[in-house]
Amino acid sequence: MNFYEETIKSTSIYKGNVTEYIVEEVKLPNGEMSQREIVRHAGASAVIPFTQSGEIVLVKQYRKAIDQVSIEIPAGLKDASDLDGLHTAKRELEEETDYNAKSWKFVTSFYSTPGFTDEFLEIYEATDLYIVDDSLTQDDDETVEVIIATYDEAWDLYEQGLLRDSKTVFALFYWKMKKLEMKLGE
Amino acid sequence: MNFYEETIKSTSIYKGNVTEYIVEEVKLPNGEMSQREIVRHAGASAVIPFTQSGEIVLVKQYRKAIDQVSIEIPAGLKDASDLDGLHTAKRELEEETDYNAKSWKFVTSFYSTPGFTDEFLEIYEATDLYIVDDSLTQDDDETVEVIIATYDEAWDLYEQGLLRDSKTVFALFYWKMKKLEMKLGE
Repeated sequence: MNFYEETIKSTSIYKGNVTEYIVEEVKLPNGEMSQREIVRHAGASAVIPFTQSGEIVLVKQYRKAIDQVSIEIPAGLKDASDLDGLHTAKRELEEETDYNAKSWKFVTSFYSTPGFTDEFLEIYEATDLYIVDDSLTQDDDETVEVIIATYDEAWDLYEQGLLRDSKTVFALFYWKMKKLEMKLGE
Repeated sequence: MNFYEETIKSTSIYKGNVTEYIVEEVKLPNGEMSQREIVRHAGASAVIPFTQSGEIVLVKQYRKAIDQVSIEIPAGLKDASDLDGLHTAKRELEEETDYNAKSWKFVTSFYSTPGFTDEFLEIYEATDLYIVDDSLTQDDDETVEVIIATYDEAWDLYEQGLLRDSKTVFALFYWKMKKLEMKLGE
């Protein structure tokens, strides 16, 4: 089966700080023409951070795109000088929460929503957390509050609809899975 | 803690078929100005469909935004006349795979990536699948191939990097969790 869509024309509509919006005229496998709207993105890393007493570290921040406060696992954009996903994860955990970790493990990676963007997200698990210093070095345009939650508290935030982004919902289900594996001794 | 970002100016840069690209000038809680790039999206539904013999039904399609063939759980956009997520899920399962299901269950919902888009995704689990008819009624601009995979086959596709979008990675981990729950008799 032939799936390929040939780009006939690609137009950069807007180049922002975080995203570039591109409209492409494509030729479908059946010969018909169609339009694809594409958001180019540098990619990001996220961290599922567990404290030594088994709580999760979350960050609360305002998301203008949804006009809501959102509670999420720490995450941040890769920058051009910093293409290594684990390096980004470590930097963002420290910037947003003032924690770093002795143990790091790759969990998964995925395209957030490949129907219209190439944003690619790597997710790492961080354990054996330790405090780095007392002064947060957050990005100038970010206001974040750190929330430390037990398993039940995190699920409660989820049930209340305060924890609703894909990577954080994934993290909660991942946590649930880990607990089931421990119960089974796997 | 005050998180709110006040919109000072909102400019619609481009209104496409699936997305609208908006740039907003915002006033941060600290009084500074910043810019937010926002992709408006109508939202979508996705389905984790299990056959009666316990296999998953996936669809293979080309994603221009990542210039790759991607294997995903069936999903599709809500349209204006169809704001009910479950209704969208049923329609998309049928359109893309020719299956419908006797049992439907809400699994979760999330914002795909609220840093820059309001795309909201509802995920349903479909069981007791049955074939609807022999002629697929796919959208004109979609070329999809149905793949029916066992648990091990699906994880193998994941390991090979062919299954890399957030909702489908979520679905795999969800499936793993269900299997652990069954083992534990939960």
